[in-house]
Amino acid sequence: DFLNALHEIVPAFGASTDDLERCRLNGIVSCGDRHRHIYERAMLLVEQVKVSKGSPLVTCLLEGPSGSGKTALAATVGIDSDFPYVKIVSAETMIGLHESTKCAQIVKVFEDAYKSPLSIIILDDLERLLEYVAIGPRFSNLISQTLLVLLKRLPPKGKKLLVMGTTSEVSFLDSVGVCDAFSVTYHVPTLKTEDAKMVLQQLNVFSEDDVDAAAESLNDMPIKKLYMLIEMAAQGEHGGAAEAIYSGKQKIKIAHFYDCLQDIVRY
Amino acid sequence: DFLNALHEIVPAFGASTDDLERCRLNGIVSCGDRHRHIYERAMLLVEQVKVSKGSPLVTCLLEGPSGSGKTALAATVGIDSDFPYVKIVSAETMIGLHESTKCAQIVKVFEDAYKSPLSIIILDDLERLLEYVAIGPRFSNLISQTLLVLLKRLPPKGKKLLVMGTTSEVSFLDSVGVCDAFSVTYHVPTLKTEDAKMVLQQLNVFSEDDVDAAAESLNDMPIKKLYMLIEMAAQGEHGGAAEAIYSGKQKIKIAHFYDCLQDIVRY
Amino acid sequence: DFLNALHEIVPAFGASTDDLERCRLNGIVSCGDRHRHIYERAMLLVEQVKVSKGSPLVTCLLEGPSGSGKTALAATVGIDSDFPYVKIVSAETMIGLHESTKCAQIVKVFEDAYKSPLSIIILDDLERLLEYVAIGPRFSNLISQTLLVLLKRLPPKGKKLLVMGTTSEVSFLDSVGVCDAFSVTYHVPTLKTEDAKMVLQQLNVFSEDDVDAAAESLNDMPIKKLYMLIEMAAQGEHGGAAEAIYSGKQKIKIAHFYDCLQDIVRY
Amino acid sequence: DFLNALHEIVPAFGASTDDLERCRLNGIVSCGDRHRHIYERAMLLVEQVKVSKGSPLVTCLLEGPSGSGKTALAATVGIDSDFPYVKIVSAETMIGLHESTKCAQIVKVFEDAYKSPLSIIILDDLERLLEYVAIGPRFSNLISQTLLVLLKRLPPKGKKLLVMGTTSEVSFLDSVGVCDAFSVTYHVPTLKTEDAKMVLQQLNVFSEDDVDAAAESLNDMPIKKLYMLIEMAAQGEHGGAAEAIYSGKQKIKIAHFYDCLQDIVRY
Amino acid sequence: DFLNALHEIVPAFGASTDDLERCRLNGIVSCGDRHRHIYERAMLLVEQVKVSKGSPLVTCLLEGPSGSGKTALAATVGIDSDFPYVKIVSAETMIGLHESTKCAQIVKVFEDAYKSPLSIIILDDLERLLEYVAIGPRFSNLISQTLLVLLKRLPPKGKKLLVMGTTSEVSFLDSVGVCDAFSVTYHVPTLKTEDAKMVLQQLNVFSEDDVDAAAESLNDMPIKKLYMLIEMAAQGEHGGAAEAIYSGKQKIKIAHFYDCLQDIVRY
Amino acid sequence: DFLNALHEIVPAFGASTDDLERCRLNGIVSCGDRHRHIYERAMLLVEQVKVSKGSPLVTCLLEGPSGSGKTALAATVGIDSDFPYVKIVSAETMIGLHESTKCAQIVKVFEDAYKSPLSIIILDDLERLLEYVAIGPRFSNLISQTLLVLLKRLPPKGKKLLVMGTTSEVSFLDSVGVCDAFSVTYHVPTLKTEDAKMVLQQLNVFSEDDVDAAAESLNDMPIKKLYMLIEMAAQGEHGGAAEAIYSGKQKIKIAHFYDCLQDIVRY
Ligand SMILES: Nc1ncnc2c1ncn2[C@@H]1O[C@H](COP(=O)(O)OP(=O)(O)OP(=O)(O)O)[C@@H](O)[C@H]1O
Ligand SMILES: Nc1ncnc2c1ncn2[C@@H]1O[C@H](COP(=O)(O)OP(=O)(O)OP(=O)(O)O)[C@@H](O)[C@H]1O
Ligand SMILES: Nc1ncnc2c1ncn2[C@@H]1O[C@H](COP(=O)(O)OP(=O)(O)OP(=O)(O)O)[C@@H](O)[C@H]1O
Ligand SMILES: Nc1ncnc2c1ncn2[C@@H]1O[C@H](COP(=O)(O)OP(=O)(O)OP(=O)(O)O)[C@@H](O)[C@H]1O
Ligand SMILES: Nc1ncnc2c1ncn2[C@@H]1O[C@H](COP(=O)(O)OP(=O)(O)OP(=O)(O)O)[C@@H](O)[C@H]1O
Ligand SMILES: Nc1ncnc2c1ncn2[C@@H]1O[C@H](COP(=O)(O)OP(=O)(O)OP(=O)(O)O)[C@@H](O)[C@H]1O
Ligand SMILES: [Mg+2]
Ligand SMILES: [Mg+2]
Ligand SMILES: [Mg+2]
Ligand SMILES: [Mg+2]
Ligand SMILES: [Mg+2]
Ligand SMILES: [Mg+2]
Repeated sequence: DFLNALHEIVPAFGASTDDLERCRLNGIVSCGDRHRHIYERAMLLVEQVKVSKGSPLVTCLLEGPSGSGKTALAATVGIDSDFPYVKIVSAETMIGLHESTKCAQIVKVFEDAYKSPLSIIILDDLERLLEYVAIGPRFSNLISQTLLVLLKRLPPKGKKLLVMGTTSEVSFLDSVGVCDAFSVTYHVPTLKTEDAKMVLQQLNVFSEDDVDAAAESLNDMPIKKLYMLIEMAAQGEHGGAAEAIYSGKQKIKIAHFYDCLQDIVRY
Repeated sequence: DFLNALHEIVPAFGASTDDLERCRLNGIVSCGDRHRHIYERAMLLVEQVKVSKGSPLVTCLLEGPSGSGKTALAATVGIDSDFPYVKIVSAETMIGLHESTKCAQIVKVFEDAYKSPLSIIILDDLERLLEYVAIGPRFSNLISQTLLVLLKRLPPKGKKLLVMGTTSEVSFLDSVGVCDAFSVTYHVPTLKTEDAKMVLQQLNVFSEDDVDAAAESLNDMPIKKLYMLIEMAAQGEHGGAAEAIYSGKQKIKIAHFYDCLQDIVRY
Repeated sequence: DFLNALHEIVPAFGASTDDLERCRLNGIVSCGDRHRHIYERAMLLVEQVKVSKGSPLVTCLLEGPSGSGKTALAATVGIDSDFPYVKIVSAETMIGLHESTKCAQIVKVFEDAYKSPLSIIILDDLERLLEYVAIGPRFSNLISQTLLVLLKRLPPKGKKLLVMGTTSEVSFLDSVGVCDAFSVTYHVPTLKTEDAKMVLQQLNVFSEDDVDAAAESLNDMPIKKLYMLIEMAAQGEHGGAAEAIYSGKQKIKIAHFYDCLQDIVRY
Repeated sequence: DFLNALHEIVPAFGASTDDLERCRLNGIVSCGDRHRHIYERAMLLVEQVKVSKGSPLVTCLLEGPSGSGKTALAATVGIDSDFPYVKIVSAETMIGLHESTKCAQIVKVFEDAYKSPLSIIILDDLERLLEYVAIGPRFSNLISQTLLVLLKRLPPKGKKLLVMGTTSEVSFLDSVGVCDAFSVTYHVPTLKTEDAKMVLQQLNVFSEDDVDAAAESLNDMPIKKLYMLIEMAAQGEHGGAAEAIYSGKQKIKIAHFYDCLQDIVRY
Repeated sequence: DFLNALHEIVPAFGASTDDLERCRLNGIVSCGDRHRHIYERAMLLVEQVKVSKGSPLVTCLLEGPSGSGKTALAATVGIDSDFPYVKIVSAETMIGLHESTKCAQIVKVFEDAYKSPLSIIILDDLERLLEYVAIGPRFSNLISQTLLVLLKRLPPKGKKLLVMGTTSEVSFLDSVGVCDAFSVTYHVPTLKTEDAKMVLQQLNVFSEDDVDAAAESLNDMPIKKLYMLIEMAAQGEHGGAAEAIYSGKQKIKIAHFYDCLQDIVRY
Repeated sequence: DFLNALHEIVPAFGASTDDLERCRLNGIVSCGDRHRHIYERAMLLVEQVKVSKGSPLVTCLLEGPSGSGKTALAATVGIDSDFPYVKIVSAETMIGLHESTKCAQIVKVFEDAYKSPLSIIILDDLERLLEYVAIGPRFSNLISQTLLVLLKRLPPKGKKLLVMGTTSEVSFLDSVGVCDAFSVTYHVPTLKTEDAKMVLQQLNVFSEDDVDAAAESLNDMPIKKLYMLIEMAAQGEHGGAAEAIYSGKQKIKIAHFYDCLQDIVRY
């Protein structure tokens, strides 16, 4: 199954898995059918790239609301592939650089990938790479032109490349034509009540009686926000409760949990 | 209680408390439930950051009308935490600098924080840091992209960081996606009549008969403006009355107080 | 009274009064209650700044139609205060400079003021300092951000500062948030018929019979335009009449006065 | 009368009259009451500036449709004044210069004027100086800010200055606030039928029978276009007729005149 | 008549006629009354400039749909004048230059013209010189300001200049005020059915029976496109027919002609 | 027929056919009448350019949806012509360059072409060369002006040039006037059901029974996407099936094919 799959494949690649591991700080838990489906399909693309003759370049976009698990998913695919070159391109390492410098760095990653027989490039948080802001809207056309070309440019003969992008601003990407530049697009959703329940059961911080009520209130919550919420609630109303809760000695009080939920959700 | 809490914790941190103290020139008085609630919750976040393993980065936004006490509140949390690194980032020290220089200075503050096991960074007056002006609207996209990345970038292993932002332009921050980049948001309100009354009683510049009438006229007044108004009224109609009033020998005449209120409120 | 007040206080300050005097080329005459009220209130703010402990920075905006007497009024307050540092910041001395140079000069004036125990800074014609033009609208965001910060930044301990601004584009200032950055705002109006009459009587250029008719036609005239109009009319229909009229030997013919009024008023 | 007036005053000024003379290539003919009225009023302003004590700076704008005679009128006032410094500022001598260089040259003209006891500056074709184009609209804000300041800045003590501007884009000037910066504005109109007739009679190129018909078709024609039209018509249908017509041997055929009118008027 | 006129005048001018000849690659054929009328009127302007005293500068705009023959017409007038200086200013020789360099080159052409007693300048494809594009719209304001000034600036005493412009974007030129800057404007139309027939008869590539049908389908075709269409059709359905058709041995098949027309006309 | 035609002509040109061959990675298969028609017409233009005297420059635009086969078509025409100079201009070799550098490179290609008696230039993906993005919209006006001029500029005497452009953003090209700058435009469509069936039969990856059903679901699919889809489906539901399918041992399961179609089509 999904979770097992993660551990069956032993990666052996040059790129540091550390960078990729930091993308899933809370690990990977089972959280529903859609997440599993996307993982499986992405792994098929990994295989397609490996064996294909006609399509040396495959591109795949993961889009979904903020915190839905896109980056962790893409990192997991990167880790689970046995490709010698796996690289994540993120705005975090390019803060404050001029757009032309960012372009050069992105192009460099592609040029490096072209030297490896099998490569994966993760373009994380595309809207941030594009310096997108909704007002205007503004964004870097230099970078978007660069990506539009790179997403169609074939690697040299004999080289294969899988590009995975992530974004929580799919309609923006669409309007600049970057969506269409990807061969396939998968929507990574927030958690439904039953997904949330599955996660809560694995975390084991509520008394059995409260799990259902808690999960009910978590419909449509992104998985990343769920983790933040649980940590807040675990402090307890007056602080100091975290250790007892994580060690299982105590459970989160459902009333306090609701309070924290209020603080974290904006209407 | 709230006021006591302020003095129970003895801060012991490297950053100069002087900068933080200047952010609450008129001290901290009791001014209602909401202000107290926010203070308590923020102190819980301080604790969460300290003990958490899963969330080394917590971010919290204080938003509310101009003068409602956001900066003083954030400074107080900074002072009352026992964190070794507490730093306020403000437009005041960056007047006239180019946006890229501002970016560099902001990044520097974060890099410094990453070196301390426990840090607090206060991003004061975010709309000013972003060089926001409603016409257009215009703002620095360079700085907003920088903040969007910094608010999500994890500190190195073993380091913990609490970021507190303040703003009186929450809808602008929302439209550039900076709001969503914060884990929690608290609304800091103006004073209601009963809050204003509580403050006036502590200041003791009205005769007992006038306090109610004065407080009535102060509904929805931000606390900072209330202090300015009292000072104006304390001069008296023809000047020269301030000393007598502050020493308690005289009281503010309610009629003159109303006059000053007229000057200070715009319709 | 108002006019007496101007001469009762003997100024003794380092700044050149010459600059300030040139701001009221036609002197100061009695021209109605509102002008007097504003003068008195502004003088109270001067005193507040002097004696206050809690508000080392007070800011006050004079807004009103073009030519209504704002600059003359602010200059008069500056002259009549006994503050050692009084400085007018005007676009006239910064023609054609780059916005960043203008910023630097404005910041310099504030830094200088911070060295004096008691200071007044007049920001004259704020829309001109901000390089405002209605089409677009366009303006210097660099300068507006600088002013927004300077209008809130506290002077160093022990120093006191009163900032007075003038503008005839209050709605623009409002839309960039500069209005709200001032503690108090006063509206300086055009002259009503009775105010105009008061001025005409002091000027004594009409025959007694014509003063009422002339004043009647001057409803809503700004005081500066009134002076220009009187000068035009004083030339007479064929020129050469000015000397006779100013020396009192002759009076302005009301018909010619109406003609000139036609030329000067745009519909 | 108007035309006589032009020759009664003998100018004696340092500035080259040549530049000014070239502004009225077709001389000055009588062309109606409004043109005469404006000339007379402008000459009164010349006198006012000379004798006034209270208004060392007078500014006057001539606005009207393209070709209505604004520049010729302003040049004539400059020539007929007896001022030692008369200078025309025109876009013709600043083609292709950067806006800041243009600003510097304009400021230089004002600085020079400040050295003369009595000066006239003609700002010709203000929309061209401001690099105005209707699309957008676009224009140089640097130059417009410079003019806005220069039009209000007083010359040094003892110096007097009359500034005359011309424009055919008064509504644009209005929208950037330059109109309001002038003390007086005069509208220079196109020719009415009777004005056109007066001009045609002086030119004497039609047979007596045709003058009325020709004038009738010229209602609302600017005087400059009228001159161009007459020249076109004077060539005759097959060319070669011009000399005969100007020498008076032949007259313009009214039918051919109508043909030319068709070509020159756009609907 | 029109075609004869072209050869009656023997040009004798310094400028290379080669440049001008290349502007009419397909020669000049009779193509209807309007084209002839414009030619004749333009030649009259040539004469007017030569003999006139009052208008040393005449400017004339040829506007009309793309390919209607404007450039060929202007070049023909240039060739047929006997002016010593005839120069065509075209975007072709300024590809990729910065707008200020383009300005300098345009100004240079005018300065050179000012040295010749009689000059013609052709400003070909004004929208291209102005770097116009409909989206936005965008264009070079630097160049448009330069042209606006040059089109009104008088040549030095004793020099005469005729400026002819061509454009297929007359409404754009209108909106930037360049149209009004020309003294006269002529509309160069597409061909009407009878004009097209006249041209086809001169080309003699259809059988007599087909000429009418072919001409009928060519209503509103610009002359330049007509030439392209004939060349396409002359290849024949399967290629190889061109020589036979131009030598007169074969005629174009009307059915294939209709096919080509389909390809060339966009709906 | 169409496919035969491709091999009948033996190309003999200086430009590397390698670049052109890479433009049709999946070869050229028969895919319907429209594609064949365009190929034949384009080859006629090749001939026209060769034999024509009157039109040394012919320009032709291939427009159609993304992936419809435009580039492969243009490359094929280039390969099948016997022209000594055939060059493809593509954004791929100009990533991140400044627009002026791109211009210079494009101009260089044209200058080189002008040296060869017969040349073909392919301007591939014009919207990418123009740095077009729909938001705004934004694009490089410098490059669009350059292309507008180059598409009309005649090669030197005796040289002939065919320019072929490709684009999937025809309405954008239209709005910047680049469409009209081409002599002929052909629309390259997606595949209709019967076209898709023809392609599937040639690929032979479905069992005979499934071909019709598969083709039915492929109505309006661009040929490039069809190839990607077949490769995805060929992996099989659990991977590992590709080899068996391409070697003909196995067929694609229609159910899995539908699944893949879901992933690839966006609604
Ligand atoms: N099955 C899972 N899939 C994805 N993430 C998971 C899963 N199980 C646990 N997680 C955790 O959930 C978090 C998902 O956060 P992640 O940063 O991937 O979200 P995101 O969609 O990329 O957010 P953003 O929109 O802010 O970029 C990670 O901390 C990860 O460890
Ligand atoms: N309980 C309180 N909470 C906050 N401020 C208080 C309190 N009691 C007194 N004050 C005083 O009220 C003032 C609040 O001003 P502060 O600058 O914090 O407001 P602000 O919301 O940050 O304003 P701005 O929107 O202009 O940035 C300070 O002078 C502070 O000393
Ligand atoms: N009581 C008065 N108050 C103000 N101005 C007066 C008074 N009496 C006379 N004046 C004269 O009226 C004129 C007012 O002009 P001033 O430049 O102050 O107007 P303003 O409102 O600043 O104009 P602007 O909008 O153009 O800046 C001055 O010449 C001043 O000498
Ligand atoms: N009474 C007159 N007033 C003005 N111009 C006259 C008069 N009589 C003759 N003219 C001639 O009419 C022409 C007026 O042209 P002028 O350049 O002054 O018009 P303008 O309004 O400045 O045009 P533009 O709007 O193009 O700047 C000049 O050639 C001038 O010699
Ligand atoms: N009587 C004529 N008038 C104009 N052009 C003619 C005439 N007879 C033949 N031609 C030919 O028609 C073509 C007209 O093309 P030309 O370039 O002048 O059109 P244009 O209107 O300038 O086009 P564009 O709008 O593209 O600039 C030329 O090749 C010219 O040789
Ligand atoms: N008859 C054909 N015509 C065109 N392409 C074909 C044909 N047969 C097979 N192909 C293949 O189809 C693909 C067409 O892709 P191509 O890149 O030409 O499309 P495109 O329209 O240029 O796409 P884009 O809009 O992305 O630029 C190529 O891989 C080509 O080998
Ligand atoms: Mg992510
Ligand atoms: Mg604050
Ligand atoms: Mg003023
Ligand atoms: Mg003029
Ligand atoms: Mg042309
Ligand atoms: Mg393509």
